[in-house]
Amino acid sequence: MGRGLLFVVSGPSGAGKGTICQRIIRELDIDLSVSMTTRSPRTGETHGVSYYFVTRQEFEQRIEQGGFLEYAQVYDNFYGTPKEMVMERLVAGRDVILEIDPQGAMKIKESYPDGIFIFILPPSMKELRRRLTGRRTESADAVNRRLRETLTEISYIEKYDYCVVNDDLEEAVERTASIMRAEHSRVSRGVQDLIARYKEEV
Amino acid sequence: MGRGLLFVVSGPSGAGKGTICQRIIRELDIDLSVSMTTRSPRTGETHGVSYYFVTRQEFEQRIEQGGFLEYAQVYDNFYGTPKEMVMERLVAGRDVILEIDPQGAMKIKESYPDGIFIFILPPSMKELRRRLTGRRTESADAVNRRLRETLTEISYIEKYDYCVVNDDLEEAVERTASIMRAEHSRVSRGVQDLIARYKEEV
Repeated sequence: MGRGLLFVVSGPSGAGKGTICQRIIRELDIDLSVSMTTRSPRTGETHGVSYYFVTRQEFEQRIEQGGFLEYAQVYDNFYGTPKEMVMERLVAGRDVILEIDPQGAMKIKESYPDGIFIFILPPSMKELRRRLTGRRTESADAVNRRLRETLTEISYIEKYDYCVVNDDLEEAVERTASIMRAEHSRVSRGVQDLIARYKEEV
Repeated sequence: MGRGLLFVVSGPSGAGKGTICQRIIRELDIDLSVSMTTRSPRTGETHGVSYYFVTRQEFEQRIEQGGFLEYAQVYDNFYGTPKEMVMERLVAGRDVILEIDPQGAMKIKESYPDGIFIFILPPSMKELRRRLTGRRTESADAVNRRLRETLTEISYIEKYDYCVVNDDLEEAVERTASIMRAEHSRVSRGVQDLIARYKEEV
């Protein structure tokens, strides 16, 4: 049995990557990686599902032990991808999805270059503005700042393997699922065992 | 609108590549390339569907004009892939499937390196022997010769991009269709226009 595949999914806030990933893990046999953070849980968040909530001391100890595939500090809080949990699943032959911003994705690319990098895009900036405004949780200034941040994020796209435009959710899920299925058929992921088996049989 | 994609499908006789390609063209918006040959039509074969049946003189004239993506002589007959028909469709933005043996596929790789190369494998040599024997059209000697030829063909597999094992027809069709869908999402096929559009919109 081969090692599972690590799919790294990024995209601007409002592009719908969270919804797509949730749909994918329901439809394909694949696990979603859970991040670790030092921030406090919000209402409705569950330890081990939303995040692994740990103390700053625990987080820093794990950093020292090289226990993260990547981590970052955002204002006062740390966020990271626990290495062991991802690697255990991959070694067991299971695929893993990692939802992460481009900066984090680029760190993963260094620590795990075999990952498959997928960028989810909104259909247009106009539609993204509509989606962000529709949430009513952000001021006009905040929305404009997010749109500028989005352009910066999009500039990373050429470092990714695939790009999926989320103009229609069903189609975007199907395209993302197709990418994940197709990657298992790549010859570059190893066919030597297969060829050896055919030769033995003749 | 971008150019369509050329999918080159190979695999040993009995692996089921013909059945898979027929299913794909029914399910996806994709054309099957029709080969040109100098051999006579057999019962049930239609000009323009099974093959384009032409005279040897017409075929040789087309060779001189550089009118083939690849061609080969098998015993007394010529077989080739007419360049113009494939290119017209690709330029019009349509995907094209080309079903061809590995020698032909390698020539296509030289003349059209942007093609996507897919190899269809039988589940095992034992199963392939069963399928070939089941056809009852070939002697035991012929079956053995085919199995040896198959091993030679399989040695080309590492020159291909993808490999699909046809153990279950439905799954093999779905895997092949996923490859074809996924290739449209590859960043390497060009995202500059897309990025420019997002930038203009802000």
